[in-house]
Amino acid sequence: MIKETVEFQVEFYDVDSMQVAWHGNYVKFMEVARCALLRKIKYDYIEMEKSGYAWPVVDLHIKYMRPMTFLQKIRCEVTLVEYEFGMKLAYKFMDAETGKVLTKAESTQMAIDIAKKESLFGSPKCFVDRVRACEACENA
Amino acid sequence: MIKETVEFQVEFYDVDSMQVAWHGNYVKFMEVARCALLRKIKYDYIEMEKSGYAWPVVDLHIKYMRPMTFLQKIRCEVTLVEYEFGMKLAYKFMDAETGKVLTKAESTQMAIDIAKKESLFGSPKCFVDRVRACEACENA
Amino acid sequence: MIKETVEFQVEFYDVDSMQVAWHGNYVKFMEVARCALLRKIKYDYIEMEKSGYAWPVVDLHIKYMRPMTFLQKIRCEVTLVEYEFGMKLAYKFMDAETGKVLTKAESTQMAIDIAKKESLFGSPKCFVDRVRACEACENA
Amino acid sequence: MIKETVEFQVEFYDVDSMQVAWHGNYVKFMEVARCALLRKIKYDYIEMEKSGYAWPVVDLHIKYMRPMTFLQKIRCEVTLVEYEFGMKLAYKFMDAETGKVLTKAESTQMAIDIAKKESLFGSPKCFVDRVRACEACENA
Repeated sequence: MIKETVEFQVEFYDVDSMQVAWHGNYVKFMEVARCALLRKIKYDYIEMEKSGYAWPVVDLHIKYMRPMTFLQKIRCEVTLVEYEFGMKLAYKFMDAETGKVLTKAESTQMAIDIAKKESLFGSPKCFVDRVRACEACENA
Repeated sequence: MIKETVEFQVEFYDVDSMQVAWHGNYVKFMEVARCALLRKIKYDYIEMEKSGYAWPVVDLHIKYMRPMTFLQKIRCEVTLVEYEFGMKLAYKFMDAETGKVLTKAESTQMAIDIAKKESLFGSPKCFVDRVRACEACENA
Repeated sequence: MIKETVEFQVEFYDVDSMQVAWHGNYVKFMEVARCALLRKIKYDYIEMEKSGYAWPVVDLHIKYMRPMTFLQKIRCEVTLVEYEFGMKLAYKFMDAETGKVLTKAESTQMAIDIAKKESLFGSPKCFVDRVRACEACENA
Repeated sequence: MIKETVEFQVEFYDVDSMQVAWHGNYVKFMEVARCALLRKIKYDYIEMEKSGYAWPVVDLHIKYMRPMTFLQKIRCEVTLVEYEFGMKLAYKFMDAETGKVLTKAESTQMAIDIAKKESLFGSPKCFVDRVRACEACENA
């Protein structure tokens, strides 16, 4: 299972009038983590486009357990939990210092053939191959 | 079941480089719809705070079925599907002209007693009463 | 001078931990007003692209005089103050009920020929013509 | 003159449908740089509040010279150009690799006495002292 970790801090513009990170901003945090994992697989958004596929998010689920506060250092671990039938990622947000889990989330993306404007039933070979190459590399 | 409807259009700043509304911006759209429904119940964020409770979002789920595009007119129907044990809302986003469903979503909020800094197991009476008063009013 | 007016309210996600609209969000408010004025001229972002020109913002200036607060109803008057040499707009944000001025701002955009990837020294004829047609219409 | 430098990359959610960073997002980039400089002076937003003063932004000016693109690495140099009569910062955004200047900006903040709810004519002593201590430290 391919994993990646990113760290960030909660900025002033992320915080709402209840003094915690506004819940909608977590989608940005997830995107930063996802992009880091995709870079590891060598399939970032630019590579996606070159490969002829777009990967819109079709499902998003966030469970907020504990709030994030201004200037808090956050670590996000993201794991590729499904890649043969679409791309499903699981996210775990933790306080970077204590490791306490704050939020869990999942996102699912499905491939679209850009030229044909058609959704794919499974994942395109170019993506599956890169995942396997990355896994082989990690296990070596 | 209490319902409310809001309409909006997709702005330039909502659109990403794939020429569709960025998936994270739907959380804003949901908030606008939720606030409209809460005003109908006479329990908007300002009334919440006066009542001594905060209602953080604890769960968010979005299913993206069809994209929204720049300047598209969108109608969002929001329904209060649970109010005795927390507040759960269901959202349906449609093209305002054709009625075609684009996205479905749900959000769940749990009450926190601001003074005691404690989560409530169920919903506070002040909220339940307002929901029932609103329902009685709608059915009258 | 071509003018347009839009009204909106400050949403929860616009407000920062100081309980006022975060200063960066005014750029969104300006964009909504600008798009309304451009629609009036029949030169919205879609027409721009069809005309072969992009109009990136090259200068932005905002003077914040009084804060905007959650749920405040705001009126924004936008005026086209220059159109022959680029497009310069002036914005005045007011409390919608009292008319009290809260913020003044300006934005400047310059045309780029999309095909040639070249900046224009002045404004393209297609834009100047539409402004004059709109002015003639208003004065009629 | 106190300076600070931050580096960041342009994320997918920063980019608009013209394939460049949306001009409104620069206000976030400025805030990240400003917060870094304020930490250096030991007067971040938390220290501000402890000191009894809020510092709302009263003026913002951005000159966009060249666009920022997706995944571009950006360096922002921020300089404190005025501190005795309010706080004025100048920002220079550059491509992190080539050093090419992309955007220049300025922000001005004025102190408000939180308890008295009054604007100050000049800067409070607590801020001036910290700036001078930081300068002395830099020159030592």
